[in-house]
Amino acid sequence: MTDRLEAQFAFLNEADRLKSVLRATTLCDGSRPENSGEHSWHLALYALVLADHAAPGVDINRVIRMLLIHDLVEIDVGDVPIHSANGHAHASAETQAAEARAADRIFGFLPNDLRADLRTLWEEFEAAGTPDAIFAKSLDRVQPVMANLQSGGGTWITYSVTADQLQARVGSKIARGAPDLWAWVKARSATFFSA
Amino acid sequence: MTDRLEAQFAFLNEADRLKSVLRATTLCDGSRPENSGEHSWHLALYALVLADHAAPGVDINRVIRMLLIHDLVEIDVGDVPIHSANGHAHASAETQAAEARAADRIFGFLPNDLRADLRTLWEEFEAAGTPDAIFAKSLDRVQPVMANLQSGGGTWITYSVTADQLQARVGSKIARGAPDLWAWVKARSATFFSA
Repeated sequence: MTDRLEAQFAFLNEADRLKSVLRATTLCDGSRPENSGEHSWHLALYALVLADHAAPGVDINRVIRMLLIHDLVEIDVGDVPIHSANGHAHASAETQAAEARAADRIFGFLPNDLRADLRTLWEEFEAAGTPDAIFAKSLDRVQPVMANLQSGGGTWITYSVTADQLQARVGSKIARGAPDLWAWVKARSATFFSA
Repeated sequence: MTDRLEAQFAFLNEADRLKSVLRATTLCDGSRPENSGEHSWHLALYALVLADHAAPGVDINRVIRMLLIHDLVEIDVGDVPIHSANGHAHASAETQAAEARAADRIFGFLPNDLRADLRTLWEEFEAAGTPDAIFAKSLDRVQPVMANLQSGGGTWITYSVTADQLQARVGSKIARGAPDLWAWVKARSATFFSA
């Protein structure tokens, strides 16, 4: 039990570093960049509150678990802003390899059973092939749109994003897992992009 | 649907402010105070990873949901550090009334069904009378102990805490819901307090 607990706490202490990974998106009040730890909390709360917008059969408890761990690899590889040049291209083989190495190292702190469980859950999120992962990915895309709407433009201004680019880079992915969420934020975004 | 979604997003936007509520505890590397948003994420991850240390019958999915919302009232009333003069006394009627008003206001953004569900879940956490809430409270107490151990003392130094005070203010509550977690961190803490 002691060795097991030692490993569990070592993982939780390592995970603390996610609070120091900064994203391009700011808080809703625009006061500072959001970090990936608090972003993960906000997304899990999104899943809890927006569960009725998921496709039938989506298991919200699994979605929440997925969102709690989805960004841990950023401790090693950092966040790639979606509207940056690398963010909306297909992830290169190099990036994918770096993320896999990060997952090896970070989930590697855990006891074997938990390591396998959480690694598999992270891979499911990354592959975006199951209903749970598709909904989780939609939330991961809609939350920064909402932050930009609240803060007056945010990364849309930073990266000179057009309405068409928003649709292509973000809208299609939100619509895949949560069509009514995309319809709602798209309508709100139209005001910003027509200004 | 539009009114419902409007209410759901209004709540999620209000919740964003929890990222600006600062705690007395620092990050594990001591670099800055932790905020209550990232703290809530870290606790939910604690629940996910330390589930096997909960009492039989504890529903970890409910514990995670509880931890995601447990600190939202701090948007209005702030965090009360456990080792401050007010933190280890019984909460005054005044404080309890202020928290109830905060819960009314913040959960009040939600549609009726969600408002009732999350308000009830928060009250269960506060009352600490069910196995799920007792385990959630234990995690909420053990995570700052771990941060202090990692950062070289943290709030134990700020508030001149003794080993006996740690046992009385924190240890008894951790031991109630997670006795082996308390045994582990108590043994590690002994090194700090004997130095």
